[in-house]
Amino acid sequence: MATASAPHQTVRRPGGRSARVRAAVHQAVKEMLAEDTGDQLTIPAVATRAGVHPTTVYRRWGSVGDLLTDVATSRFSGDLVVPDSGSLREDLERYAADLARDLSDPDTLALVRAIVGAAGENADVCRAERQDQLEAILDREHARGNKQAPTVERAVDGLLAPLYYRAVFTSQTPTPEWARSLVAHLFPE
Amino acid sequence: MATASAPHQTVRRPGGRSARVRAAVHQAVKEMLAEDTGDQLTIPAVATRAGVHPTTVYRRWGSVGDLLTDVATSRFSGDLVVPDSGSLREDLERYAADLARDLSDPDTLALVRAIVGAAGENADVCRAERQDQLEAILDREHARGNKQAPTVERAVDGLLAPLYYRAVFTSQTPTPEWARSLVAHLFPE
Repeated sequence: MATASAPHQTVRRPGGRSARVRAAVHQAVKEMLAEDTGDQLTIPAVATRAGVHPTTVYRRWGSVGDLLTDVATSRFSGDLVVPDSGSLREDLERYAADLARDLSDPDTLALVRAIVGAAGENADVCRAERQDQLEAILDREHARGNKQAPTVERAVDGLLAPLYYRAVFTSQTPTPEWARSLVAHLFPE
Repeated sequence: MATASAPHQTVRRPGGRSARVRAAVHQAVKEMLAEDTGDQLTIPAVATRAGVHPTTVYRRWGSVGDLLTDVATSRFSGDLVVPDSGSLREDLERYAADLARDLSDPDTLALVRAIVGAAGENADVCRAERQDQLEAILDREHARGNKQAPTVERAVDGLLAPLYYRAVFTSQTPTPEWARSLVAHLFPE
């Protein structure tokens, strides 16, 4: 029922406006990163692009670092599938190849770089779920009694680290073939 | 001899003013990164801190990315010594431990993060000389006929990558002890 205090209100689920603002602001951030104009991302510029008032953005996210952290958290959640082929080596090869494909996408890489620059330790969000998933693959294997399964630390140093390093610090593309080749080094000959 | 056209000129080497401007601007960038105010580094803010006109900074460096690249190039050149103990493993362990110490310095890390955020592929300057030095250690060893020496790619993936990854993407400190432990994995048992 429309009331005098909210004459223009249309029927929407609770939180609808808040969710729309978030979607518009996230979309603006992604577009600005993809355009790669060389300009720095600022909250007023994001607000203008999203069609919302800068105060709304400041009130909700506080800083560019916090905003990018929120964008990255939703971008890097649930996007990769944890494989379970029955073979640990095959699962690790698939997982590494999927991550290589993801990190060679220019838009993904732009977001990773922006968050490293703006959010310091929050850059963790770019890889926290990947590490959890790697851990799940290895834990499952340890539970199956596979004594050859590497430790999580070895797998992080030997798979995640070269993938992110090559993507972020070099001009080489992390290819799926190269990513798969990293897995061999985790298993003693 | 003082001339009418330069009455206040004192005796300085050619390029003296230019070198002073560069030093002042570099120092301003380092201080602002070290203070970690959460504000983004902008050319007007750097110029104010350095006591120079923004136009001077724009004319010389063009963008924050180019300016940070210049600061990083001078920061990451010639700072690590290439060890030559006669033992490859020992040399790699020393090199990895030195790099871990460098990357666990908050000011170094702030510069690395800022350049990843602002300079895209130029983030290469943070590690190009380190890779050259690693290559020098390995080339020397191959020239000595050591067949056990790992390839440059293996050493980059197995040493440089985990060091930069841990520093930039995690809240763990890359300790010298952990860095040394990475070397063992480069040699088949």
